[in-house]
Amino acid sequence: MCDFKTFGVLFMDQNSNLRRDAQAIITGAIAAVRPDAAVRRALHGHSFSGKVILVAVGKAAWSMARAAHDVLGELIDAGIVITKYGHVMGPIGDLELVEAGHPVPDDNSFSGTTRALELVRGLTSEDTVIFLLSGGGSALFELPLLPAEELQDITNMLLSCGAGITEINTVRKRLSAVKGGRFALSCAPARVYSVILSDIIGDPLDMIASGPTVPDRSTCADALAVVNKYGLTLSQGAMELLNRETPNELCDVENVVTGSVSELCEAASRECSSLGYEPTVLTDRLCCQAREAGSFLGSVARTHAGMGRKLAFIAGGETVVKLTGSGLGGRNQELALAAAEEIDGFNCAVFSVGSDGTDGPTDAAGGYVDGATLSALKAAALDVHTVLADNDAYHALKAVNGLIITGPTGTNVNDVAVVLVSG
Amino acid sequence: MCDFKTFGVLFMDQNSNLRRDAQAIITGAIAAVRPDAAVRRALHGHSFSGKVILVAVGKAAWSMARAAHDVLGELIDAGIVITKYGHVMGPIGDLELVEAGHPVPDDNSFSGTTRALELVRGLTSEDTVIFLLSGGGSALFELPLLPAEELQDITNMLLSCGAGITEINTVRKRLSAVKGGRFALSCAPARVYSVILSDIIGDPLDMIASGPTVPDRSTCADALAVVNKYGLTLSQGAMELLNRETPNELCDVENVVTGSVSELCEAASRECSSLGYEPTVLTDRLCCQAREAGSFLGSVARTHAGMGRKLAFIAGGETVVKLTGSGLGGRNQELALAAAEEIDGFNCAVFSVGSDGTDGPTDAAGGYVDGATLSALKAAALDVHTVLADNDAYHALKAVNGLIITGPTGTNVNDVAVVLVSG
Repeated sequence: MCDFKTFGVLFMDQNSNLRRDAQAIITGAIAAVRPDAAVRRALHGHSFSGKVILVAVGKAAWSMARAAHDVLGELIDAGIVITKYGHVMGPIGDLELVEAGHPVPDDNSFSGTTRALELVRGLTSEDTVIFLLSGGGSALFELPLLPAEELQDITNMLLSCGAGITEINTVRKRLSAVKGGRFALSCAPARVYSVILSDIIGDPLDMIASGPTVPDRSTCADALAVVNKYGLTLSQGAMELLNRETPNELCDVENVVTGSVSELCEAASRECSSLGYEPTVLTDRLCCQAREAGSFLGSVARTHAGMGRKLAFIAGGETVVKLTGSGLGGRNQELALAAAEEIDGFNCAVFSVGSDGTDGPTDAAGGYVDGATLSALKAAALDVHTVLADNDAYHALKAVNGLIITGPTGTNVNDVAVVLVSG
Repeated sequence: MCDFKTFGVLFMDQNSNLRRDAQAIITGAIAAVRPDAAVRRALHGHSFSGKVILVAVGKAAWSMARAAHDVLGELIDAGIVITKYGHVMGPIGDLELVEAGHPVPDDNSFSGTTRALELVRGLTSEDTVIFLLSGGGSALFELPLLPAEELQDITNMLLSCGAGITEINTVRKRLSAVKGGRFALSCAPARVYSVILSDIIGDPLDMIASGPTVPDRSTCADALAVVNKYGLTLSQGAMELLNRETPNELCDVENVVTGSVSELCEAASRECSSLGYEPTVLTDRLCCQAREAGSFLGSVARTHAGMGRKLAFIAGGETVVKLTGSGLGGRNQELALAAAEEIDGFNCAVFSVGSDGTDGPTDAAGGYVDGATLSALKAAALDVHTVLADNDAYHALKAVNGLIITGPTGTNVNDVAVVLVSG
């Protein structure tokens, strides 16, 4: 007869190993895509001659700038940090620090951006502008070529007539002194080295803050077509601006995308390797329904469980929650919970986490389930299907110690879900 | 400037390679799990001493028996084939051939089963019974221990009071002379070598035709608990039968599950290898929504596209279609179509096929999409989201040459979906 008690204890031990491994993978993967780590990696091995001007823009601008300052120190001749109110954590050498409006730009956005343009004026081809861009840069780094109220009116018109985000950007780029590659043009003939922290799946460079250092793929004809399509009536000044091309190529500009979800996946993969798992990155573009992704990953785990190999499967991206109830949860918690049934009783785990440390309107970063979770849920009189139908993953996972809590991480490069199979 | 025409031609060529590879993978994988191939593989390298009795039962019994006869020939001393009406394709040596009722058993089921029990009577421990079981065996291989009408009444009572399939089987096994391991018990002391063609995910042996050669995990107490739970009133004869245990262990019985969805996946994996792809079997237990699985697999394809490696990812199982419209399609067609958007313009393909050659109420076995499919759909004024919302994948795929047509394959081991990334 099977000694159930011994087996039970062994099983718990195995699962606490899985839980410990999960924690290490999450911590290591998120640390690797923190803005400071991303900037250090991007600057590693680069040397800069001539003058070096630093312009850091976005919600993570302060920590990106500090990392650059740590690496380059006195090599930086001058620089400015433009970030959201409350996001400056202290002085960084002699850098100018500006807090400004987000998501709606304000006078500080405009004056900070004006100051950045002054700093990059009059450089030579020996000099370098290091541009550090993170989320929120669209509002924080802006200098309209017409009155700010008029820009806001045009934006409102476009929104109310149902224009798409690409259409809106095509028009707005032409009304800005820095968007659509124009900031890089202002830096010429200096070299521009741009480090872009991405939180958009697939990294479309010209979509992040409308690409201040990225050649613009749209044309004046495209912008005018949008105006005609929606029958907009614009001022003569605005129409003149729409007829000015943005740069469609830029010389001596290098854009490095970092801190992306694919780096998050690669970092998770390295952590899995170091813990003895054979990792496979399945995708960094996951976009299906959270609970269906959980079912899929649960079936991957179950298929490979008990075969004697330690395997890891990694899927990054951003799943979608289908709202069918009124409970509390988030896409990562829902994904994890949906895998619980499939891996019941097996020595494997499925967990999913938002890199920014928040998942839905909760204090958790994501969820964790393993082979013991379903029994624990049943013991707590919780049924997975009922919980999912009520979108109440948070309370169910909380009841079985399945919440992953990290607190704010200072980065935001989407989610990563991991399957661990422990032999 | 890019020579668009040349690129276009090249692209078409690459995709027709993908389509050709898909066809080879589908053909090869299905051939490997055909009942005859499965039986050949299961009998390969086995030798049998003493008398050899063959009992083949199920919808695939005739082709399984013929394959066994091809391999063993005169080594078979006697045997019987019990299959569905219209499924006997000609004589097989001296084997007795019986066609019987399915899904409701009839007198031919009972007399054929009686004859099978006669054939295995009086054997010695030197002898072997080769038992070949396929889908439909539950009705075709049956000999009730009470009047057939009473068995049917009890079944109807259980169904109408909402009993689950496991509860129904727990009761019915005890009312049968061959189920719940009793056929194997009748063969004793002869050795039983049972080849079971599975079409149930995860291969629960005692669920396939209620396991004529499989030790029964349920007990009389379980059966009586079902009767009490639903307050059934049964005859004294039936109650006596419910108090007779089925065998919970069986000596000298070997059950080999073959032709399963995991073999389908492994066969697809071998075909991918032989075409130069590095294959990964993700799962053989896929059970999420078809369109979400398609999105997931599309994102896997897209993530690895253009990296210079030829990769294949394989997922077997049975997805679920969520009915939101009234169009024509099937789960495999819907899965494939849902991947079209994600791989648009890339040198990769996603396809999915039912091993029996039918997918939903259509003449197609499944669907195929590649990097050119979305453009072709747009050219035909078809929108993927609209088509999926109407569950009309069949007509959309038909318009872009994306249907996979195989005709009936003579096997049924669930579906396989494949991602091909061509460098």
